[in-house]
Amino acid sequence: MIEIERKFLVTSDVYKQHAISKNKIYQGFLNSHPLRTVRVRLKGESGTITVKGLSDKEGTTRFEWEKEITGADAKALLQLCEDGMISKTRYEVPAGRHIFEVDEFHGANEGLVIAEVELGSKNEAYSKPDWLGKEVTGDPRYYNSQLSKQPFTKWKS
Amino acid sequence: MIEIERKFLVTSDVYKQHAISKNKIYQGFLNSHPLRTVRVRLKGESGTITVKGLSDKEGTTRFEWEKEITGADAKALLQLCEDGMISKTRYEVPAGRHIFEVDEFHGANEGLVIAEVELGSKNEAYSKPDWLGKEVTGDPRYYNSQLSKQPFTKWKS
Repeated sequence: MIEIERKFLVTSDVYKQHAISKNKIYQGFLNSHPLRTVRVRLKGESGTITVKGLSDKEGTTRFEWEKEITGADAKALLQLCEDGMISKTRYEVPAGRHIFEVDEFHGANEGLVIAEVELGSKNEAYSKPDWLGKEVTGDPRYYNSQLSKQPFTKWKS
Repeated sequence: MIEIERKFLVTSDVYKQHAISKNKIYQGFLNSHPLRTVRVRLKGESGTITVKGLSDKEGTTRFEWEKEITGADAKALLQLCEDGMISKTRYEVPAGRHIFEVDEFHGANEGLVIAEVELGSKNEAYSKPDWLGKEVTGDPRYYNSQLSKQPFTKWKS
């Protein structure tokens, strides 16, 4: 129930050549408070409800609890969520012994592409593909819960 | 997924004589916003996560989505909840063709006793036991999500 992950910007679309899956994801938040986000996700015809706690200082580890729900339930719950539903296309991209999840955001977050890798422990080694850019682990602007409120296309650079 | 229920104050403890079950309940809220409450409940060794939407004007019908979770998961999630965990003892009390749930609140809500009956439709008839007092259906002060923030012992009469 502790999630350890690192998050990166993406510098080219070479990851698409190596992807083993591609899925459209819709997600909303029943609570986007950093202390206790409650996320509803619809991926194809299946859904999840996910509760996350606060990150540690580095932003690498975070309490996470997730439960599968039906696609119909996810659709009903999405209608209850706060404004700012996120839509994105997720690619699963193997690299070394890990699978990176690369999210291309749409709508108000169009143009943003983020890659995440989940690790078994904080110090676990992992391969860095060429298309990985700057690490943004722990930067709250890139939390999906924040992107739903402060979308990428509205950031001042 | 639409819940229809009516809620009453309780005027005597005669309901205890007719109760068929008695359980301690602990519950907290991952979100107490009236538009989308997210409740975590621990009852004995089992748990639930429940999402409720806004009530209709009368407060009788309300979107409700609920999923069973393990007691261990409920305990972990309760630690993430907003301040103001609710503890109460619930009695199930048959009356006519329905079962009333009578909640005796503890802690900051000590002294408050509420009975609820769930109906199949808005106009379904039900028996009113003698110990039922004033109806408080739709009064937001008696929502558990509100009782966790504005507990009964702090109300000004």
